[in-house]
Amino acid sequence: MDFRTIGVLGGGQLGRMLVEAASRLNINVIILDKPSDSPAKQIQATRSHIQGDFKDPNKIKELAQKVDILTIEIEHVNVDILETLSKEKKEKIVICPSPTTIRLIQDKYIQKLHLFKNNIPVVDFMEINTKDDLNLVSEKFGYPMMLKSKTLAYDGRGNYVVRSSEEIEKALEFLGNFKTPLYAERWTSFIKELAVMVVRRANGEVKSYPVVETIHKENICHMVIVPAQVNGLILENAKIIAEKTISTLSGAGVFGVEMFLMSDGHIYVNEIAPRPHNSGHYTIEACETSQYENHLRSILNISLGSTLLKVPATAMINILGKSEDFQECLKPCAEALSIPGTTIHLYGKKECRKGRKMGHITVVADSISQLFKRIDPILRIIDENESSIPYSTIQPLVGIIMGSDSDLPTMKACAEILKSFEIPFELTIVSAHRTPHRMLEYAKNAHKRGMKVIIAGAGGAAHLPGMVAALTPLPVIGVPVKGKTLDGLDSLYSIVQMPRGIPVATVAINNSTNAGLLAVRQLGAFIPSYLEKMQIFMDNQENEVLAKVDRLDSVGWENY
Amino acid sequence: MDFRTIGVLGGGQLGRMLVEAASRLNINVIILDKPSDSPAKQIQATRSHIQGDFKDPNKIKELAQKVDILTIEIEHVNVDILETLSKEKKEKIVICPSPTTIRLIQDKYIQKLHLFKNNIPVVDFMEINTKDDLNLVSEKFGYPMMLKSKTLAYDGRGNYVVRSSEEIEKALEFLGNFKTPLYAERWTSFIKELAVMVVRRANGEVKSYPVVETIHKENICHMVIVPAQVNGLILENAKIIAEKTISTLSGAGVFGVEMFLMSDGHIYVNEIAPRPHNSGHYTIEACETSQYENHLRSILNISLGSTLLKVPATAMINILGKSEDFQECLKPCAEALSIPGTTIHLYGKKECRKGRKMGHITVVADSISQLFKRIDPILRIIDENESSIPYSTIQPLVGIIMGSDSDLPTMKACAEILKSFEIPFELTIVSAHRTPHRMLEYAKNAHKRGMKVIIAGAGGAAHLPGMVAALTPLPVIGVPVKGKTLDGLDSLYSIVQMPRGIPVATVAINNSTNAGLLAVRQLGAFIPSYLEKMQIFMDNQENEVLAKVDRLDSVGWENY
Repeated sequence: MDFRTIGVLGGGQLGRMLVEAASRLNINVIILDKPSDSPAKQIQATRSHIQGDFKDPNKIKELAQKVDILTIEIEHVNVDILETLSKEKKEKIVICPSPTTIRLIQDKYIQKLHLFKNNIPVVDFMEINTKDDLNLVSEKFGYPMMLKSKTLAYDGRGNYVVRSSEEIEKALEFLGNFKTPLYAERWTSFIKELAVMVVRRANGEVKSYPVVETIHKENICHMVIVPAQVNGLILENAKIIAEKTISTLSGAGVFGVEMFLMSDGHIYVNEIAPRPHNSGHYTIEACETSQYENHLRSILNISLGSTLLKVPATAMINILGKSEDFQECLKPCAEALSIPGTTIHLYGKKECRKGRKMGHITVVADSISQLFKRIDPILRIIDENESSIPYSTIQPLVGIIMGSDSDLPTMKACAEILKSFEIPFELTIVSAHRTPHRMLEYAKNAHKRGMKVIIAGAGGAAHLPGMVAALTPLPVIGVPVKGKTLDGLDSLYSIVQMPRGIPVATVAINNSTNAGLLAVRQLGAFIPSYLEKMQIFMDNQENEVLAKVDRLDSVGWENY
Repeated sequence: MDFRTIGVLGGGQLGRMLVEAASRLNINVIILDKPSDSPAKQIQATRSHIQGDFKDPNKIKELAQKVDILTIEIEHVNVDILETLSKEKKEKIVICPSPTTIRLIQDKYIQKLHLFKNNIPVVDFMEINTKDDLNLVSEKFGYPMMLKSKTLAYDGRGNYVVRSSEEIEKALEFLGNFKTPLYAERWTSFIKELAVMVVRRANGEVKSYPVVETIHKENICHMVIVPAQVNGLILENAKIIAEKTISTLSGAGVFGVEMFLMSDGHIYVNEIAPRPHNSGHYTIEACETSQYENHLRSILNISLGSTLLKVPATAMINILGKSEDFQECLKPCAEALSIPGTTIHLYGKKECRKGRKMGHITVVADSISQLFKRIDPILRIIDENESSIPYSTIQPLVGIIMGSDSDLPTMKACAEILKSFEIPFELTIVSAHRTPHRMLEYAKNAHKRGMKVIIAGAGGAAHLPGMVAALTPLPVIGVPVKGKTLDGLDSLYSIVQMPRGIPVATVAINNSTNAGLLAVRQLGAFIPSYLEKMQIFMDNQENEVLAKVDRLDSVGWENY
């Protein structure tokens, strides 16, 4: 272990959660922030905390004298003094992330330029120094177009969506008429926003957390869904891009990489946070090691903790001030108390303001379906007009595939079963003989896409289930579809008589209902809410027959 | 939410973890404890904490004046003053648990008498007032026999194992020659120690946490394994007994119930802790709501949080002082940093002593097998003489059953597969036709016992897989065993052609290897470490054939 003292510039909620992780490891943390009772200071009883602005060079110097490592919980700090300190006392003080990185990120234009130069995909952007620049770029980018302050822009502040040339004046006025430097960005009609927390140790070791889906409202993070409900191949790509992005920066610590996902699967990096990030709060309850502990580990240059999820699904919902009345914020919390799997984090902020981050709620669940049921009542309290959860398709847990559309009448029953159990699934045509390449790709990627079981229906020389089983490590359920000859025996034998080494779970001829039920049982073995439903299904089935017993008894066999 | 202030008698590690949970909910906690920097005070910056003994009536009064609710993190407090307070200021102050309960638990003899009177199973015990009593009871209980102090006994202090009549003098001397009152207990040769945390709200609502296995060393808790690796029916029974035990007490809060499990499955309650307990530390990382948050919720009389596990398996290892050198304690922690799924809790105690609880490590894992792999290196550092982990059988994830021992040659291959994948399984005979009652019991309880999949082999009129599937909500894999006639077709049809509603995952005739592999795939869909192994198995399988390709190429088909 390490008993060096860490100084943090900023004492808000990120600092608070960092202190919580540090206390568990008995690591001393000293906070520099104006209030004597800022969120981070409240949970660390020490007289060493410093009252002062994290932009004040003297206060930063004072902090530096007390600690071995300096880090930040907000990037809008004074970098000049950090640079001076890192030069002056090179041997003694470690600054994480490096002042160079903080400076780079403080200016969103320079940040974007840096990413562009490093072949990280970003949307088109251009520096705007005059009104003429703006007219010029509008011809290139078209409308709408994003106009942004280069610095001090966050949670939607410093951004303006210019919808037509008539709005240019208004936009410039809103952004201070070049008092802060500006740049423009091409409008992106992304379908989702993704984010990845990446942690890097001084020795270069890098680990990334799962790709999450972030949902913003009025430019402020509203909710985070994990894992992001997008195709697993997109998840892989987002992870690669996020890690590559961070590899272009210097210094240790955790970094948040925010991205846009386009409808064609293309990903653009939007911006980087050089510190723990709102999109990583969920890691406290849902990952093997939280972003806060890993930030500490990385800046102390000790082994990084596992970034894997320890639950199947999780969400984080921000509690934002609705007005100056903090009581409003407690309503969703009160609701959350009665929902299993929720953890409430209130930050202890003394003043509530509209849009201010006052706390968050993490929800864990045994499946995405259960997660959405759990978060729904909380979201409805936060926004009573919210008729449904603002998320798109749930990724399938089960893939139903069949060799031909002529198998659909047989396979429909299976889909009906999964639908009735509320299990996310997909149904598509994959033919071993007619689309062998598609089959190969489908089977090899199914587990990467988050699927847990594949159901394959096929008739005659029914190769599909077996061939898919030969390519995936997942369980494959085979449904022998009865053809015009041989009574389905050909299909049955083709599916069940697999060679040693590659199993197919075969059900009765044409009985895709049972394939669906088998899939439910396989999921239920690990997802308690599905096991319960299966038990109820079986009880109902028994009761239905018992009702027939009663009827037979009462009307007699002659009249039945 | 609730913003009443809570006062805690005691400021050790339990208080510390209680404060951590309280801070997240912005609940004010004031600690009464001697040191100004006791573990709980360190992480709650307030000038309101009180320096003083939690046995000092005046200090307790002082605390009571500052708070709305009083609770304890240690039961050896001054109950007289708590009783006075609860009478005096009945309207104002809430004391949890009730002083009556604390008094009852402080005296282990009265506690045991109370349990006995309430029909809670306890081992035989008897009050000892004189040496003659002791001689008398030794005739009844035999040797060895436990001699215990009625009060102030914990972590092995105040206990003496009397092994023969010659040791009586020594025992009495060790326990202070009746200076503290004594009682004797019949020796129990339990096979395991179990514990359950039970939380009760003032309104009577009760929830219990999973049954855990506690492993003691020199009478101090060394390790906790969750879920306890015992038959699921025993788990159910332990839960019932624990909840019944707590229902005999008054007051809200969490309670730890420690139990002995005998080889015949019989359970005795050993003792109760009227507060958060060492055996519940794991709940912070592994349950939907921790014992600490639920203690707060229960004493505030708000909705209790879910007590369910959110991970498949977890362990807690205590970090005990080995000497006065705290550095010794950091060795297992340093090891834990490099193991995924570990969380280190150091309590910030200023002085290290042999046997003192300085911290703990929680380990989570995707399966019990992975858990044991993860904790092994930590345990080896704590005790270098520990050649293996001191736990017994792992509960099976897979049950292999067959109608007759004549099926064993066929089913052995399946067992070999599971063994090679290091998957805990059991193999036994269950016959649908010859042991229908056993089959019914086996099938109905399999999921309660923690099993995830059942593999059933049968031949001829092969009813076993289908009948088991009709009784369990788990997936059942059927292996058609080839008989002397009909080439196994009879078995195949009997197993695969199940009616709509009850699926059996059928594999090829006599191919129990594939049944094993199918089970691995089903587990692997949810347990990442098994999925990885399956991928490696498939790669190896491919490479084996490719090696044959090479050999065929090099030696030619004539010489192959």
